[in-house]
Amino acid sequence: MASRSLVAEIFAIGNELLLGEVLDTNTAWLCRYLSGLGGRVRRAVLLPDDVEAIRAELEGALGRAPDLLFTTGGLGPTEDDRTLAAVAQATGCPLEEHPQALEMVAERYRALAAAGFVADAELTPPRRKMARLPRGAIPLPNPVGAAPGVLLEQGPTTLVCLPGVPEEMKAIVQGPLAPFLQARLGRAGFAEMRLIADCGDESRLAPLLEEIQRRAPQVYIKSRARAFGPGVRLQIYLSATAANAQEARAMVETAGQAIMESLARAGIAVTPAP
Amino acid sequence: MASRSLVAEIFAIGNELLLGEVLDTNTAWLCRYLSGLGGRVRRAVLLPDDVEAIRAELEGALGRAPDLLFTTGGLGPTEDDRTLAAVAQATGCPLEEHPQALEMVAERYRALAAAGFVADAELTPPRRKMARLPRGAIPLPNPVGAAPGVLLEQGPTTLVCLPGVPEEMKAIVQGPLAPFLQARLGRAGFAEMRLIADCGDESRLAPLLEEIQRRAPQVYIKSRARAFGPGVRLQIYLSATAANAQEARAMVETAGQAIMESLARAGIAVTPAP
Repeated sequence: MASRSLVAEIFAIGNELLLGEVLDTNTAWLCRYLSGLGGRVRRAVLLPDDVEAIRAELEGALGRAPDLLFTTGGLGPTEDDRTLAAVAQATGCPLEEHPQALEMVAERYRALAAAGFVADAELTPPRRKMARLPRGAIPLPNPVGAAPGVLLEQGPTTLVCLPGVPEEMKAIVQGPLAPFLQARLGRAGFAEMRLIADCGDESRLAPLLEEIQRRAPQVYIKSRARAFGPGVRLQIYLSATAANAQEARAMVETAGQAIMESLARAGIAVTPAP
Repeated sequence: MASRSLVAEIFAIGNELLLGEVLDTNTAWLCRYLSGLGGRVRRAVLLPDDVEAIRAELEGALGRAPDLLFTTGGLGPTEDDRTLAAVAQATGCPLEEHPQALEMVAERYRALAAAGFVADAELTPPRRKMARLPRGAIPLPNPVGAAPGVLLEQGPTTLVCLPGVPEEMKAIVQGPLAPFLQARLGRAGFAEMRLIADCGDESRLAPLLEEIQRRAPQVYIKSRARAFGPGVRLQIYLSATAANAQEARAMVETAGQAIMESLARAGIAVTPAP
């Protein structure tokens, strides 16, 4: 391939995720966002609000030196929000009150107090906690919540810590973080395609798809198993990352065409997914 | 605590998860199921269909010796379903055709062919692949799909490999695996409670909840951040694991009562979640 995909890892942090009390949708959203920019997420981990567990995983991940390492969750005002304490330990960058972050938090509470959503704008210790960042970090304004995001360069890896509330996480990624991500990732291109095969038997489709996969190793091809039954069909998903979007699109279309021809020869109808 | 919670790790395997093309709901479902039996999931990982990546993670997990290690995904007939190949490498148990598993696969395809859902019941190589299990494994019948689940004892750890299709995964856990899980986990008890605080300011609630948490360290207490706004409230979630369900229930109710009294003193109304 002409371009190397930037590699990312994602940590989703919160006891509620491992209790199954809350479904983690942040990881899938980030995976899709980063894939769309041509990045490749190679691993994602769900972790409890436990400094030691987070620190150990962070050290492991930083040792593998991904280009991007995201965390979601654990930035809030409560004592059990411990992500940045773990980041401080794993990176050796101690937590310090960051003046710019404190101003972001203060501004948020001034606005909330003015609107009557909170009783006052006083910077209590729980509120100040959200402005304590690892030394050297850059705060990312949170357009819809109180806790700023955090960007911290660590050698070859950019560490990005985001809130766990999905609306806040997305608002930071699509807002203040977007120019940074586009600059780092936006040079690569991504394309995908979905086909529906009029066949519910994955074991019959498998050897046909494997043949195409061997001829197009740079395209990711996957059929999705569904429960067998009358009218049940298989979806075939194709995607590719390349130096630019046109190149990725051409790769996917060539492989998609080959699949349609191969399945037609086997008597299986294929249509683009609606 | 009188009883030690059994510790579990979960691996969800599939490129589609890391592309964000499919949302992993299996992990949250398993977390909730295991928590409900008194188990504790300490870590979950999303991994691609890559033998080397899965093998390395499996070796790391087996080294930490959890009581239970689950995988979901990668058991199907296609070449890119590679979970068992990675298990074989990580455990040193080579893949072998398992007569009982082969009979399960054969029976499934006989039924599908008889119903006209597949063309024939022939045991083609992709179908036979689903019966190749690590040496020493026990196949778990799949009530709604073709690929059997796999149970493999590895020293202190029981490794359980399940299909990625949610209906198949759940059917195996709630069917053939249920007696095993209840025997290992069912001695502990779990209880939970949800309260709604008439307060949208987590930074105000935080010090009050921290005080209760210090007095009830065995109860897990978490407030959930929501976007601020008129009428917005915070949910407080409590749960506990103990030697039996009554004990867990008593712990949660004592802490819940303390929260209601503390918040009432601060002028914040609290009601049970509907």
